[in-house]
Amino acid sequence: MCELLAMSANTPTDLCFSFTGLRQRGGGAGPHRDGWGVAFYEGRGVRVFHDPEPSASSRIAEVLETHPIKSEAAICHIRQANVGRVALENTHPFIRELRGRYWTFAHNGQIEGFRARPGIYEPVGDTDSEHIFCDLLNGIRAELAPDVGLDTLLAELVTRAGSYAQRGVCNLLVSNGDWLFTFCSTRMTAITRRAPFGPARLKDADVTVDFEPETTPRDIVSVIATEALTSDERWDDYLPGEWRLWRQGEVYASGRVPVPDLAHPTATPTI
Amino acid sequence: MCELLAMSANTPTDLCFSFTGLRQRGGGAGPHRDGWGVAFYEGRGVRVFHDPEPSASSRIAEVLETHPIKSEAAICHIRQANVGRVALENTHPFIRELRGRYWTFAHNGQIEGFRARPGIYEPVGDTDSEHIFCDLLNGIRAELAPDVGLDTLLAELVTRAGSYAQRGVCNLLVSNGDWLFTFCSTRMTAITRRAPFGPARLKDADVTVDFEPETTPRDIVSVIATEALTSDERWDDYLPGEWRLWRQGEVYASGRVPVPDLAHPTATPTI
Repeated sequence: MCELLAMSANTPTDLCFSFTGLRQRGGGAGPHRDGWGVAFYEGRGVRVFHDPEPSASSRIAEVLETHPIKSEAAICHIRQANVGRVALENTHPFIRELRGRYWTFAHNGQIEGFRARPGIYEPVGDTDSEHIFCDLLNGIRAELAPDVGLDTLLAELVTRAGSYAQRGVCNLLVSNGDWLFTFCSTRMTAITRRAPFGPARLKDADVTVDFEPETTPRDIVSVIATEALTSDERWDDYLPGEWRLWRQGEVYASGRVPVPDLAHPTATPTI
Repeated sequence: MCELLAMSANTPTDLCFSFTGLRQRGGGAGPHRDGWGVAFYEGRGVRVFHDPEPSASSRIAEVLETHPIKSEAAICHIRQANVGRVALENTHPFIRELRGRYWTFAHNGQIEGFRARPGIYEPVGDTDSEHIFCDLLNGIRAELAPDVGLDTLLAELVTRAGSYAQRGVCNLLVSNGDWLFTFCSTRMTAITRRAPFGPARLKDADVTVDFEPETTPRDIVSVIATEALTSDERWDDYLPGEWRLWRQGEVYASGRVPVPDLAHPTATPTI
């Protein structure tokens, strides 16, 4: 399994603190040694960093931990390979341009044997995750008009994410910089920080930060992750099948669809 | 105008030495203060670094100068904005996936008012350069079958580059990781290094490197740039309209098409 991290904020905010915690799980405190990547949106632009090295020992990751890149939407992933060898082309987040926007995508889980429907978007690597992303984009392009509104697009994202989750574990992060779509198949949690800001302590590293001096009273910053990153704050767990669309640090819309209980599979029945 | 740099090699090679020289032109020795970017291919995968900051003072650029990322094909660009504001989305190299490969693109020059033909690929930013890239990809997708061979693809690249160069200055670097296509509209030069390797001295920084201890006798590494990066080697200038397709460090094919002499425009006639 992999670990996901995302951020949505109403003001450009860096991800250094959360990334410091997550990074330790990439070969330090955790088993996710098979590469990592992060996408930071700045307006319509996006910077994507990919590294097939473990994040805990990566030189580029070290720089990102201390060099604040300010963003209103970000997606991060550290990988424990199950499908697809350890290689740069299999490192999330994946990126494609759709209708004049860069879309990025990260996946935690596994859908065995998944293949994207034929279409314009084709996988470069050989992960099920990149196939799911291409399938999603090919579906959107096939079904939706270019000028479709966000609510229609969101309905399509929910339907498709729900159908993927019928076939396997499929925790998803998708963003186009304007919004961040999050879907929980088995495991996801979130926290929204707003005034009055206080200190927080990482679970995975001996680091405490006080957000107060770095923020203004109107700032709203939400962090979404596979597992809580801090030990002294209250994180809000998603339920299986729950989705939330984040914009400017807040939930714009949310809901839940039925999914198989893959986190707690039914015990083999005894006869 | 901007500055271009590319590399083609038959063994994974880092770009640190050349990048050190080019980087100085981004706000140090040169006027190209409006961002920079680089794409490094590793097999089918690619790492792209973009930064709207001047390369001479960029923290990420500093890391790339000292942290060797080994690649068989790389494209780099430092920007002096003419069309399109200084913003992340206007920073080269641009990237798109075409038929299961990541294509990257960097442009030096200007084609006033250029707009991409309508198609699947749409610009995210507002530079003429990104419009040219999208036009190129839309053209390839419209005209060529998915399984077309390299020679047919190359003919299409040459035709399109030649037609762009009729409309303005259009020095181009295009790669899909397997090959590197270079087109000179006004200014481009190259050097191929092979055994016996020796030392070389940068023009823009007080740095000398001896390639000999870092190479094997079978290594072949070519560097292509807007202007020679070293002062003690013999660079091979392109002629206007000249194109070369590089593969594994060597010229796979080359040729020349007629282009207007934009480097030496005709003087205004006197009556």
